[in-house]
Amino acid sequence: MLPKALLPELWTEILVPVCAVVGIVFSLFQWYVVSCVKLTADRSDPSSTEDGKNGHGDYLIEEEEGVNDQSVVAKCAEIQTAISEGATSFLFTEYKYVGVFMVFFAAIIFLFLGSVEGFSTKSQPCTYDKTRTCKPALATAVFSTISFVLGAVTSVLSGFLGMKIATYANARTTLEARRGVGKAFIVAFRSGAVMGFLLAANGLLVLYITINLFKIYYGDDWEGLFESITGYGLGGSSMALFGRVGGGIYTKAADVGADLVGKVERNIPEDDPRNPAVIADNVGDNVGDIAGMGSDLFGSYAESSCAALVVASISSFGNNHDFTAMLFPLLISSMGILVCLITTLFATDISEIKAVKEIEPALKNQLIISTVIMTVGIALVSWIGLPSSFTIFNFGTQKVVKNWELFLCVAVGLWAGLIIGFVTEYYTSNAYSPVQDVADSCRTGAATNVIFGLALGYKSVIIPIFAIAVSIFVSFSFAAMYGVAVAALGMLSTIATGLAIDAYGPISDNAGGIAEMAGMSHRIRERTDALDAAGNTTAAIGKGFAIGSAALVSLALFGAFVSRAGIHTVDVLTPKVVIGLLVGAMLPYWFSAMTMKSVGSAALKMVEEVRRQFNTIPGLMEGTAKPDYATCVKISTDASIKEMIPPGCLVMLTPLIVGFFFGVETLSGVLAGSLISGVQIAISASNTGGAWDNAKKYIEAGASEHARSLGPKGSEPHKAAVIGDTIGDPLKDTSGPSLNILIKLMAVESLVFAPFFATHGGFLFRIFS
Amino acid sequence: MLPKALLPELWTEILVPVCAVVGIVFSLFQWYVVSCVKLTADRSDPSSTEDGKNGHGDYLIEEEEGVNDQSVVAKCAEIQTAISEGATSFLFTEYKYVGVFMVFFAAIIFLFLGSVEGFSTKSQPCTYDKTRTCKPALATAVFSTISFVLGAVTSVLSGFLGMKIATYANARTTLEARRGVGKAFIVAFRSGAVMGFLLAANGLLVLYITINLFKIYYGDDWEGLFESITGYGLGGSSMALFGRVGGGIYTKAADVGADLVGKVERNIPEDDPRNPAVIADNVGDNVGDIAGMGSDLFGSYAESSCAALVVASISSFGNNHDFTAMLFPLLISSMGILVCLITTLFATDISEIKAVKEIEPALKNQLIISTVIMTVGIALVSWIGLPSSFTIFNFGTQKVVKNWELFLCVAVGLWAGLIIGFVTEYYTSNAYSPVQDVADSCRTGAATNVIFGLALGYKSVIIPIFAIAVSIFVSFSFAAMYGVAVAALGMLSTIATGLAIDAYGPISDNAGGIAEMAGMSHRIRERTDALDAAGNTTAAIGKGFAIGSAALVSLALFGAFVSRAGIHTVDVLTPKVVIGLLVGAMLPYWFSAMTMKSVGSAALKMVEEVRRQFNTIPGLMEGTAKPDYATCVKISTDASIKEMIPPGCLVMLTPLIVGFFFGVETLSGVLAGSLISGVQIAISASNTGGAWDNAKKYIEAGASEHARSLGPKGSEPHKAAVIGDTIGDPLKDTSGPSLNILIKLMAVESLVFAPFFATHGGFLFRIFS
Repeated sequence: MLPKALLPELWTEILVPVCAVVGIVFSLFQWYVVSCVKLTADRSDPSSTEDGKNGHGDYLIEEEEGVNDQSVVAKCAEIQTAISEGATSFLFTEYKYVGVFMVFFAAIIFLFLGSVEGFSTKSQPCTYDKTRTCKPALATAVFSTISFVLGAVTSVLSGFLGMKIATYANARTTLEARRGVGKAFIVAFRSGAVMGFLLAANGLLVLYITINLFKIYYGDDWEGLFESITGYGLGGSSMALFGRVGGGIYTKAADVGADLVGKVERNIPEDDPRNPAVIADNVGDNVGDIAGMGSDLFGSYAESSCAALVVASISSFGNNHDFTAMLFPLLISSMGILVCLITTLFATDISEIKAVKEIEPALKNQLIISTVIMTVGIALVSWIGLPSSFTIFNFGTQKVVKNWELFLCVAVGLWAGLIIGFVTEYYTSNAYSPVQDVADSCRTGAATNVIFGLALGYKSVIIPIFAIAVSIFVSFSFAAMYGVAVAALGMLSTIATGLAIDAYGPISDNAGGIAEMAGMSHRIRERTDALDAAGNTTAAIGKGFAIGSAALVSLALFGAFVSRAGIHTVDVLTPKVVIGLLVGAMLPYWFSAMTMKSVGSAALKMVEEVRRQFNTIPGLMEGTAKPDYATCVKISTDASIKEMIPPGCLVMLTPLIVGFFFGVETLSGVLAGSLISGVQIAISASNTGGAWDNAKKYIEAGASEHARSLGPKGSEPHKAAVIGDTIGDPLKDTSGPSLNILIKLMAVESLVFAPFFATHGGFLFRIFS
Repeated sequence: MLPKALLPELWTEILVPVCAVVGIVFSLFQWYVVSCVKLTADRSDPSSTEDGKNGHGDYLIEEEEGVNDQSVVAKCAEIQTAISEGATSFLFTEYKYVGVFMVFFAAIIFLFLGSVEGFSTKSQPCTYDKTRTCKPALATAVFSTISFVLGAVTSVLSGFLGMKIATYANARTTLEARRGVGKAFIVAFRSGAVMGFLLAANGLLVLYITINLFKIYYGDDWEGLFESITGYGLGGSSMALFGRVGGGIYTKAADVGADLVGKVERNIPEDDPRNPAVIADNVGDNVGDIAGMGSDLFGSYAESSCAALVVASISSFGNNHDFTAMLFPLLISSMGILVCLITTLFATDISEIKAVKEIEPALKNQLIISTVIMTVGIALVSWIGLPSSFTIFNFGTQKVVKNWELFLCVAVGLWAGLIIGFVTEYYTSNAYSPVQDVADSCRTGAATNVIFGLALGYKSVIIPIFAIAVSIFVSFSFAAMYGVAVAALGMLSTIATGLAIDAYGPISDNAGGIAEMAGMSHRIRERTDALDAAGNTTAAIGKGFAIGSAALVSLALFGAFVSRAGIHTVDVLTPKVVIGLLVGAMLPYWFSAMTMKSVGSAALKMVEEVRRQFNTIPGLMEGTAKPDYATCVKISTDASIKEMIPPGCLVMLTPLIVGFFFGVETLSGVLAGSLISGVQIAISASNTGGAWDNAKKYIEAGASEHARSLGPKGSEPHKAAVIGDTIGDPLKDTSGPSLNILIKLMAVESLVFAPFFATHGGFLFRIFS
């Protein structure tokens, strides 16, 4: 019997939910502070309603004249309502369709897993420890189905609440921008934090409660218990797929459509209220970048926890019933919430943004601070939450691991995330030479811009891949697949901060849009633009994190699947595996082809509608008539709902088809192939898109001699830059980020269905041999 | 003792060189026929110098008036000379630099392989059959170095002769175009056939002679003999790398540079003699598409033969010293020459092209005819050239294989090639909806064109990958890595025909350029354009073949490497392999980033020079002054020589660094990763580029109601199409096709250095453990 963790079980049972609740309370507090910015024109002096600590009561040196201009405030409120209603109605439509799918898929899970032992209700010998008795396969079927539904619902909640907060905060950010860039930053950032903490705490709490409830039935059968829990990851991730793909198509169809007619043909500025697609575009930011990304990162979080738990359950933690050590992944997440809470205070209370150029460093500091503090936090958790030595299941054997080795696994993931973040920033921020080179190539037109942009994206893959490879090597060598899973958790442990700075981007983007639409002064728009430019980079960083963690998560899930399917080697030197690898590596291309074409087709429809309105509504260009926003919203909604189905089916059906017809070896190949190929495309697509976007912004801002030589807006280089930006939109916001989900989802689905494939899989090979 | 092949050894020794000589003679005959088109203005009546059988003596119903216009013919001859001199001078410069590299690398081969047994001259027990005595490692070092040099020289010859023939034929094609499209087609096609047969026969003959010469020293030590022969593949492929990359950068820098200023800024037609980059552009077609591709396919041919031979040498063929069965790969190639000879007659003598619309079917028929006849040929060779049953080395064990199973392996490769060819045609020919959709997306501008084009390329990967996967599965299951190697050989067995239709494209392209520059009538240009449009599609088909065969070849080489390095499994579930896979899958991106950026930078320089000439040379636009072609040629030459070095080093050094520092397991991962990821990028890049090119041609040709609604030249959709075409240039002619070589070359290099890595590799892991 190996030693147990220092932290008593009771303390674990208390600490985890307490941390989750602390996160939720903190999040609600931030929401309260944001809500103090009143959206009614007759609001009283802000200093009287607030505590004065957060700078709200300070003397407003930057304050615009006529801050309380009633008509402007009313206009902002009106636009916000329109955006919020559009987003809510889209999400409800999406959830309706996805809900049908979820019910259908829940039935498949139940039937497939139930069929493993012919729906027998008799207990079975356990898979790994034949001397013990485990609950029947039917129980796994039932509980997997339940946890699947719970994961899906939590994911929906995460996305939906995020969207609600974002659409609550955008107009408030606009209004605060009248009082200075620092004030606006704080509102946007706090709102991002609301979403970050709510999501992290919620995910943790639901998982914690589910484990404890399932334990009542499973008792000592932890193998079955944590096998059932994997459904939570699958539920979260399948929702995320539809959220990312549907939201991604929505937002980019509207964006591309609005830009192609508005900016290119009609020469009106971005977010001009005369553009009929402008509301759809702003709605898109909220359903794609906020709700989609929230679901995505929740999915990653849920999956990495599940992967770690399922491997741990057949390691010494599970065999010894060491509950504290078993819940190590949840302890890491709990610690992450506390660390992110402290980190947030640095941005909101300890320092203050006074100038535009301080925004990007402030956001970057958030990453650095959270990583540094979290490193200490991980050390603490590894010390008290783990036995000094334990064994980890390693494809048929048990491997002895020390607690400091596991600390290194988590830490290497955490720091690899930071490196990926900084490399992404280097390649997508217009403060550095890569984006400036791309901007420079616009001199010779759109073609060279595209060639340089694609080359930049390809190049930006190099360091992140090395960072991921090093994390994998270290964590895999120390603690097999458990190590990889906790490395992923390490990368995701600061998720609350990551989401806060990530969500900040679209909120600022929306704030700028509202300022433009409400006809606010040029100065306000400049401030929101500055917020937005920093947001573009942080959005790219966020995507970098999402992809990096997805790579680790899916490898861990892959490992868990392989363990559960009872395979000990996945040998490239066998035909079944090698064809799996080849076909798996092709899937991201197939998937990208679908999603990009979807955006293209939907954008074409949008272009036609916008052109039609410009041509048929008299007085639209002159601003005397109002465009028909609702039709554009409907086009985006219908297109994204319709177009998300084929790529969704590709991802959801591939593991089932391959596993059933070709068996687990080929499926292993497919998973590994799609992982190693998808990661590269995802990184390059999202960085190429980010670089094009910021190259355009670089020319528009004209902040340097070089930038001015390429500008101003409307110059030939700028036109070339706009074309690049438009091409980048589906790459960075639809196909690129959806690929994370492709690789994770296929892996977690295989994991959940592993017992089914192990029993009934390889149908085709069996009938031929 | 297993049975031997039916065909006696003596017959094999006679048949192989005879087939090679037949190929060379046939090729010379075709050259003679082409040379009958005189490039001197005072040529006599063609019917008096020819036999009249090939249609040259027919009544020239289509003949243009003033066919013998002296000034036009002289002008054509002059332009041809300029192109030929430019190409020769570039190739000599390239070979000078590459020559230095080759000497350096030959030394590395000798030193590294010699060091395996410390340069001992004593005989050793064989690696696989310890009871026998094999020649010392030093002999392997010496003979590998020699065969490396031979492979490199043959590759140089293949590329150089191809270029010479192409630049000999281009003006002749132009002149024949005055007499009708059919006549011009025959000249271009015959010239392509010269190159195809010369290359196939040459490669076979040199390999055959080398084996027989080496055998004098090696005697019964076939293991050592065929290990040394692998250097032939490495030599061929390293030359091909520089040829493809250098030539690819050359041609696209000139093409993009010429188009950006000429077509986009100055609005002058393609190949206008006023454009200073026009000669460089035409030179580029010959050094990139002809010489580069010739070297590339020669490399594939040499490598697949080597891979098959090295696996066979440790199988029953080698153990029993069954020379006929051992030379089965060479027998297949010999049969291929005969089959292609018959196939060529169908195009040149049996049927005749009378109309433009017959060109593409005629070329496609070549593929179908050669595949069908070759299937019979393979059956024959498998019947007489193989024992009815034999064993093949399969990673440590011997696997029993029947001759009909091996027939299936070769046939599946051959037919997979045909499928890949047809799919490529479907996605890149403007006769089908995919390209038409891309053309249609130009209505909304360049951005949607790029989005649709990228999506098309991604989608076009699906069926080829399934075709490759099926070939791998069948051949691997039947005969392990030997099966995969002969499947690759099967795909390449009709290489002479493949090259003929492939080389036909750039020759027609050049012919069109010469017609334009010589100021020939609109009608001539229309004919050459029709030839060229078909050539674009066949070029894409050729690339499809090259990529498909490269995938099979590199898998076979990978297998041979693994066998030779003494590894029995390459397990994805080990950290060393998984990081290798991940990093390997990244390499094609790194490589593409380098080559695309190189094209971009070189094109920018070209643009500046072309602009400078237009701005400073008075009377250039009016056609009264001549541009300075030589400076543009020099820019392309310098840029491509300089820029080919970093990607070249990346490819050549990666296996050495990974093998030496990380060992053979990680290297296996890197090879597998780059293979499965590179294939996808290569296919999608070359099809995207081909589709954009033909979408542009579709709009320009205006052959349908739909096409006319997008045109004419100079319309907004056409401008968008030109941008797509320009972006596609580096994708389809530089980065895409070079990736074939990346994956093959790293594999063959690993194979050659396998004994070194097995002895001295994994340095880093050894010092840490």
